Amino acid sequence: MTGMEGKTKCEMRSWENVYLNSRRLSERIKKAGFQPDIIIGLARGGWVPARNLCDFLGVKDLVSLKMEHWGVTATPDGEAKVRFPIRMDLSGKKALIVDDCSDTGKSLVEAKRYVQTLKPELVKTATMQIFDTTPAEGIPDFWVEKIPWVWILYPWNVTEDLINLVSKVLGKRGKSHLEHIRKGLEEEFELTVGEDALREIMAESERRNRVMRIGDEERWVNVE
Amino acid sequence: MTGMEGKTKCEMRSWENVYLNSRRLSERIKKAGFQPDIIIGLARGGWVPARNLCDFLGVKDLVSLKMEHWGVTATPDGEAKVRFPIRMDLSGKKALIVDDCSDTGKSLVEAKRYVQTLKPELVKTATMQIFDTTPAEGIPDFWVEKIPWVWILYPWNVTEDLINLVSKVLGKRGKSHLEHIRKGLEEEFELTVGEDALREIMAESERRNRVMRIGDEERWVNVE
Repeated sequence: MTGMEGKTKCEMRSWENVYLNSRRLSERIKKAGFQPDIIIGLARGGWVPARNLCDFLGVKDLVSLKMEHWGVTATPDGEAKVRFPIRMDLSGKKALIVDDCSDTGKSLVEAKRYVQTLKPELVKTATMQIFDTTPAEGIPDFWVEKIPWVWILYPWNVTEDLINLVSKVLGKRGKSHLEHIRKGLEEEFELTVGEDALREIMAESERRNRVMRIGDEERWVNVE
Repeated sequence: MTGMEGKTKCEMRSWENVYLNSRRLSERIKKAGFQPDIIIGLARGGWVPARNLCDFLGVKDLVSLKMEHWGVTATPDGEAKVRFPIRMDLSGKKALIVDDCSDTGKSLVEAKRYVQTLKPELVKTATMQIFDTTPAEGIPDFWVEKIPWVWILYPWNVTEDLINLVSKVLGKRGKSHLEHIRKGLEEEFELTVGEDALREIMAESERRNRVMRIGDEERWVNVE
């Protein structure tokens, strides 16, 4: 989770919201007269909008691409590394690269550079959201919402995001009771999470060895 | 759309239903003590449950696989052809293959056979639904619902499915008014589609050159 030090505004999106935005995205693509032959969904965030766009645009060919551009996995010259390369010839094909949102824009830019090596006729990019802070080169050809920067919790990533946010709360506050974690999520991330939902997140967080329960109480501490 | 000659019962599933079933599926996988290192989502139906399982199980590696086993694309010996091969080494890894449902089971069986050539430590399979008619070899290791055979319209495929069903109605009844198509969907497929929603489906069906509008009326005929 990048850009998540200190207070960070978070926002949950529903499945219906994602579906509606995928639909609006497809309408913009159609209006521009662009009909892709293949959709390339960036793993893992782009998979759901990519799948929806296949339906709305009538595209049968759907492939996945995973870019890596953080930390040790990047090549020394700063180029993106592709974790699971697609080895296919796209000549004569129009490709659409899809991600959930474009934050720094790095993923999109690097995915596009990679896809261009597969020699397609044309490559376009699309995301549901962009931010006020997204640099010009990171703005996709098609997008639906431009919003002030916020960490979007998409419905397919709520567990992972909440586990990360809980870990930040515990990192700051030390060992905490369920109710204090709940308050921490509200105060630091503007997220309201129900008690039972949080209990399930804590159980999964324990299973992943991210937190440790203290005694028999509903109190946890980060595993260092 | 296989198995869709004549009357066919259809059933629409909501995003919430898919999410709940993905969650229940993840619980069965956890209960069995299986923790995959990589999830392989079958394109295109398996993408959404595969993405959800990544979240519920804490799996970062997600790849796509597309099997082809119908018509001219199958190899002469009846073996599955992989449309976009994954060229990766899975040695020492536990893989989970995910699809939406298992009908004849062919996709799962063939995907598993293919994935085994990548030498993983273990391969398991999972779908949300199986049917009373699914043959024993097509039953995945993990599943949530066993139901009488029905064509499930998943939310990410509603447009494509409805376009196909409308085409079947028009094929049977010839040129038809919106209201007759609506009735046809109800009588032949037990599907209730709102007037405005159907109007949008007809517009998209026209755009895809599947149907032709007759004059200025709300009447269409199949493009042969």
